[in-house]
Amino acid sequence: MADVTRKDLFNLPEGLIYLDGNSLGPMPCAVPARIADMLDAEWGGLLIKGWNAAGWMDQPARVGDLVGRLIGAPAGTTVLGDTLSIKVYQAVAAAIKLRPGRRVILSDTGNFPTDLYMVEGLIKTLDQGYELRTVAPEAVAEAITGDVAAVMLTHVDYRTGRMHDMNAVTAAAHDKGAVMIWDLAHSAGALPVDMAGSNAEIAIGCTYKYLNGGPGAPAFIYVRADLADTVEPALSGWLGHRAPFDFTLNYKPGAGIERMRVGTPPVLQMTALEVAMQAWEDVDMHEVRAASLALQEQFIEEVEARVPDLTLASPRDGAVRGSQVSFEFEHGYAAMQALIHHDVIGDFRAPNIMRFGFTPLYLDAGDVTEAVDRLVKVMDGRLWDTPEFQTKSRVT
Amino acid sequence: MADVTRKDLFNLPEGLIYLDGNSLGPMPCAVPARIADMLDAEWGGLLIKGWNAAGWMDQPARVGDLVGRLIGAPAGTTVLGDTLSIKVYQAVAAAIKLRPGRRVILSDTGNFPTDLYMVEGLIKTLDQGYELRTVAPEAVAEAITGDVAAVMLTHVDYRTGRMHDMNAVTAAAHDKGAVMIWDLAHSAGALPVDMAGSNAEIAIGCTYKYLNGGPGAPAFIYVRADLADTVEPALSGWLGHRAPFDFTLNYKPGAGIERMRVGTPPVLQMTALEVAMQAWEDVDMHEVRAASLALQEQFIEEVEARVPDLTLASPRDGAVRGSQVSFEFEHGYAAMQALIHHDVIGDFRAPNIMRFGFTPLYLDAGDVTEAVDRLVKVMDGRLWDTPEFQTKSRVT
Repeated sequence: MADVTRKDLFNLPEGLIYLDGNSLGPMPCAVPARIADMLDAEWGGLLIKGWNAAGWMDQPARVGDLVGRLIGAPAGTTVLGDTLSIKVYQAVAAAIKLRPGRRVILSDTGNFPTDLYMVEGLIKTLDQGYELRTVAPEAVAEAITGDVAAVMLTHVDYRTGRMHDMNAVTAAAHDKGAVMIWDLAHSAGALPVDMAGSNAEIAIGCTYKYLNGGPGAPAFIYVRADLADTVEPALSGWLGHRAPFDFTLNYKPGAGIERMRVGTPPVLQMTALEVAMQAWEDVDMHEVRAASLALQEQFIEEVEARVPDLTLASPRDGAVRGSQVSFEFEHGYAAMQALIHHDVIGDFRAPNIMRFGFTPLYLDAGDVTEAVDRLVKVMDGRLWDTPEFQTKSRVT
Repeated sequence: MADVTRKDLFNLPEGLIYLDGNSLGPMPCAVPARIADMLDAEWGGLLIKGWNAAGWMDQPARVGDLVGRLIGAPAGTTVLGDTLSIKVYQAVAAAIKLRPGRRVILSDTGNFPTDLYMVEGLIKTLDQGYELRTVAPEAVAEAITGDVAAVMLTHVDYRTGRMHDMNAVTAAAHDKGAVMIWDLAHSAGALPVDMAGSNAEIAIGCTYKYLNGGPGAPAFIYVRADLADTVEPALSGWLGHRAPFDFTLNYKPGAGIERMRVGTPPVLQMTALEVAMQAWEDVDMHEVRAASLALQEQFIEEVEARVPDLTLASPRDGAVRGSQVSFEFEHGYAAMQALIHHDVIGDFRAPNIMRFGFTPLYLDAGDVTEAVDRLVKVMDGRLWDTPEFQTKSRVT
């Protein structure tokens, strides 16, 4: 198996084992110098001229292509901007306009809540009898009926790590005439994705998890090439206009994916992300996937052998699991706090899920063994039964 | 007149006179060190723990209060996030739900195009017979009729600098039962604004102009205190949920202004903005206004005396002008390029407007005289008649 590990590219505090790159990736070492240079030479030195002279204006498309390469999106079909929540809204609003006679948006109960919330908000705003229908993740394909305008799913379940069969579900959606939207939050940079090959119409995702773009890094949206000049942008902002600097009073959508841009891009975040993408330049996602699965198998095996109180909540079959492993434990919140206190960072998702992300760019087999050693200490020592680890903070 | 100048707080390249702080403010000197620290100690050192331990999660409200102070918004009524385009959508979508029987959104033809584009997109998405009605800026008050759900105006015209009478227009809107939305893009940090006193329901604005938050700094939204628990967020993202980390499947709006949050905040941008706001700590906006008007009067006087080819496009009466002065000139684009080449940065707005912003925190009377000296050189030398200055770049 090819070695994809490149720990020296990431800023990892001494002694820390970071199993939360599926929530916020660590800082690439190249970020601080590039940001310092951007501040000094670009914002500081060029001021308003930075939009042209430093390439800020084209950055959302330029970085879009870097992300696109990792998700099987042809150049010119992916653009960065906004938050993933906004991109969900944009995607679903565009999709339902492509199927005007239909009134159902289908998703699953394992979807990340904001995806469902944004659709709920869209539906309420539209007030036209749209329905958000959610079914169990396993039941999605069968639930696609002729009244479904769009199927919107997160490819990899944020809680369990269960992965949908992208090609099969997309084919099932298309078979019933529905538009397919994939949220790649837990896929981009985690495993091979072939958007073009899947034939799905729209994909969205975030860049602060596996792509290490930094806290609040912008989201991305992909639209299938043949539809990019057809979709109607509900969020029709000036930077998606065909000629933003003509300042005309009426909106004319830009060419292709550019129309999915909305407002002024966050240049500091874009710059951090653009640097972070350098870590992916010579990475083969199939090699990342193989390495991730190996780490996950090792983790499952060691935990099940040594920590019997934890019950695997992720699919046992690696082929249908993303790049994380989740275990159920009644006192999972406190156990995770105790583990974090011992410098193994994973996270907790209500009600009882201890979640561990695997990111082979900066994790190896030795880290996995050490993480389990510390987990064993936490569990054998019943450290979760300590009041200091039981107080819930707002973000877990 | 009080001296509000504090040039040492800003990174201003030697010899440059920057009259474009109404487009992108210069970098506050404190930004690079704070960002370096944020990268090293927070993202780098705390990783996911930064959301709590470094206060990232509360930053949108915390910085919201700093911005709020400058616009007469009580603590807890302003929150940061997204782009101004998104905030326009959010504001108008909320406003029209407050007036369900009405179908007109009134604005003016001087509004910044993205404000109109976003409403156009909202209307098209709604497909319920809504109408965006635009009238000349001077005709707004009279055009508010009983079918107007919301009046949405930019307080200071981006092109001419003409300023609406906030209290009078708001009263006229309320008189006809319409909701009032003010876009403070060219007001926040430029002149005194009293949102609470105006009684307007909603205000929005950006922070990369007069507030010097950096390229792509987040936007803000204010909702009048008595309505904050009433407005329905169309963009109902997880961070506007009452309990985001409960991960429930249904959206419940958060308390007060928190419901206007949407997705994960851009922490690098928020941090740059939070530092930038330090420059405003002991600033009295009435003093800033007086200093700005003095600089503008001086500029108008000197230009009119020495550059007869330029025609004032801004109101002559300072009381109805924001913090910019615009002149019309047939060859304005090339003239501005030539002036920029001579290190006086203003900008151009189609079709023929040369725009100059006045920002007393880092501009003084000597700068104004020097700027006019260089403008005279450009005009007397007919430098605008040089091919190199006539080629249009994408961003002007």
